[in-house]
Amino acid sequence: MTELKNDRYIRALLKQEVDKTPVWMMRQAGRYLPEYKEIRAQAGDFMSLCRNADLACEVTMQPLRRFDLDAAILFSDILTIPDAMGLGLYFENGEGPKFERPICCKKDVDNLIMPDPEVELQYVMNAVRRIKKELNGSVPLIGFSGSPWTLATYMVEGGTSKAFTKIKKMAFADGEILHALLDKLSESVIQYLNAQIEAGAQSVMIFDTWGGVLSPRDYELFSLQYMHKIVDGLHRTYAGKKVPVTLFTKNGGQWLEKIAATGCDCIGLDWTIDIASAKERVGDKVALQGNMDPSILYASETRIRQEVDIILQGYGKGVGHVFNLGHGIHLDVPPENAKIFVDAVHELSVPYHIR
Amino acid sequence: MTELKNDRYIRALLKQEVDKTPVWMMRQAGRYLPEYKEIRAQAGDFMSLCRNADLACEVTMQPLRRFDLDAAILFSDILTIPDAMGLGLYFENGEGPKFERPICCKKDVDNLIMPDPEVELQYVMNAVRRIKKELNGSVPLIGFSGSPWTLATYMVEGGTSKAFTKIKKMAFADGEILHALLDKLSESVIQYLNAQIEAGAQSVMIFDTWGGVLSPRDYELFSLQYMHKIVDGLHRTYAGKKVPVTLFTKNGGQWLEKIAATGCDCIGLDWTIDIASAKERVGDKVALQGNMDPSILYASETRIRQEVDIILQGYGKGVGHVFNLGHGIHLDVPPENAKIFVDAVHELSVPYHIR
Repeated sequence: MTELKNDRYIRALLKQEVDKTPVWMMRQAGRYLPEYKEIRAQAGDFMSLCRNADLACEVTMQPLRRFDLDAAILFSDILTIPDAMGLGLYFENGEGPKFERPICCKKDVDNLIMPDPEVELQYVMNAVRRIKKELNGSVPLIGFSGSPWTLATYMVEGGTSKAFTKIKKMAFADGEILHALLDKLSESVIQYLNAQIEAGAQSVMIFDTWGGVLSPRDYELFSLQYMHKIVDGLHRTYAGKKVPVTLFTKNGGQWLEKIAATGCDCIGLDWTIDIASAKERVGDKVALQGNMDPSILYASETRIRQEVDIILQGYGKGVGHVFNLGHGIHLDVPPENAKIFVDAVHELSVPYHIR
Repeated sequence: MTELKNDRYIRALLKQEVDKTPVWMMRQAGRYLPEYKEIRAQAGDFMSLCRNADLACEVTMQPLRRFDLDAAILFSDILTIPDAMGLGLYFENGEGPKFERPICCKKDVDNLIMPDPEVELQYVMNAVRRIKKELNGSVPLIGFSGSPWTLATYMVEGGTSKAFTKIKKMAFADGEILHALLDKLSESVIQYLNAQIEAGAQSVMIFDTWGGVLSPRDYELFSLQYMHKIVDGLHRTYAGKKVPVTLFTKNGGQWLEKIAATGCDCIGLDWTIDIASAKERVGDKVALQGNMDPSILYASETRIRQEVDIILQGYGKGVGHVFNLGHGIHLDVPPENAKIFVDAVHELSVPYHIR
């Protein structure tokens, strides 16, 4: 095992002292980088890029060459599991992901195969191993998965959605079908993330992009309880090291106490919550990741640095903060502004870590 | 002035005693009703329907014939003001609203005309007068407008948006342009809503559909402060009657205290917040409207009634609750289920109003 040269990210997740607040950006590998677009063009379509370990590794590394990031995140898609279950993931020009065979009924759920992470999803594990080797201990590697509820929204709606009427119809009129689907997905996510950990991921994150479209009761019933199962089923320690887990429910700011009660190490915050109030509510239980509005990266250097400072002040002194955007970086952000952001976090956070 | 035969809705907004919890449904006039589709087909496009006072009146009345609703709401669009300002509103098949001439720069803002409610928007006032006459005091008529921020999102993005990158770019890089736009819109909304009140609206509601995409600080700066100006500028009493005002920020559950501090009479809640906790936080200051997930209307009668009961229990005994969905009714909901919902609110709420 190579020791980590920069372990700020892992230390912050475990609420240990750091010299500066660690920072990474959701979707840090992506279309805002011209070098990404080159590789993407070379690969052809998006999934071919995900399936090619060398190219997935290359795009994972690209932002680390430009910016002083404290973590790398596996380049992949959140919908690899439903695809491996047989739904036929595809992308149409300019539109979001779609499935050829969405889930309509109980039989569709029964027919889903349980993908073996080292068979149907081996391309992901190969990418993890390839990236881990390339990183060579410079920074930790984050593995990830979509949450069962979020995966199910795409599987039932057949793609992205605005009002989520199909899956909610299923939830409220045929709840047992949806629970059967969520059970299968939870089991698969556990296997998938544990395989990523075995392949080298030093921390994992669960993206619950669409949990926030539910009522508090339905969030617990259809999203949180399954993420809780996953937290319970993960290798929380592997090869003698703690493997911290972060849960991120977009628009979940009202439910932080419930999310913290899963026993996760960190909660990802979007920008609709004041990080000071989030820390007050759950800062004794979990680390917090976030939470700058990605659109601030359209602004001037002064404005970006000001916003970074406001968030650092909001979190204040003390352990347990991983700086990030509140959602993925937008594809038309100038890369220079991402550099301003990353550097500002490191520079401006030093005073908050002097004991 | 005709006295109201059913004033439950107004009384609840003013936190006065009622016999049953009043109920209405956002978008209660609309595509889920076959009789609406007939009139819509007759009118041609959507804006022609809005512009025809007789037809707008007819579709406003349709849900009241089917269901025991405690309020009527003006049939119109939230984008009438930007359209009257000269942006050219149009609807493409199956897609959301679009503008022919979106706002890009300061000059575009300067060039906006300030619509006179009884000239460019007279068709709306004619509809209000026509509906008021037709209602003949049976239930109160709700007037409405989009919030300045929400109107501005459509005006700058050119239509609906997912990430609101154009308006946020303007907000963070050219804030003074956006503030100039929001100032104009606020002034226009005040004139527009006051004209609706003069034409007969007995209560008004401001729809801030997209305030929830902002950070807490930016919400105050770009959305709430302008709604506050509007609340201050409205006829809060007209012809000797109080005219209650409701503010509804979708995904605004984290900011209820700030919204209540505007001095509005009522806050509209979406379903992502527990109404019990909302009441605990601001129930001494404002009435609350909401908050059932509209997708519950896909479920069985038993399930719909159960959800109504959970929300009634959540609010508990006491004045100040207007029952509603947390957002507009979905277009594929069976009208029978809307009836089950409305009747359940009246039937199940009686015990909560026995002193």
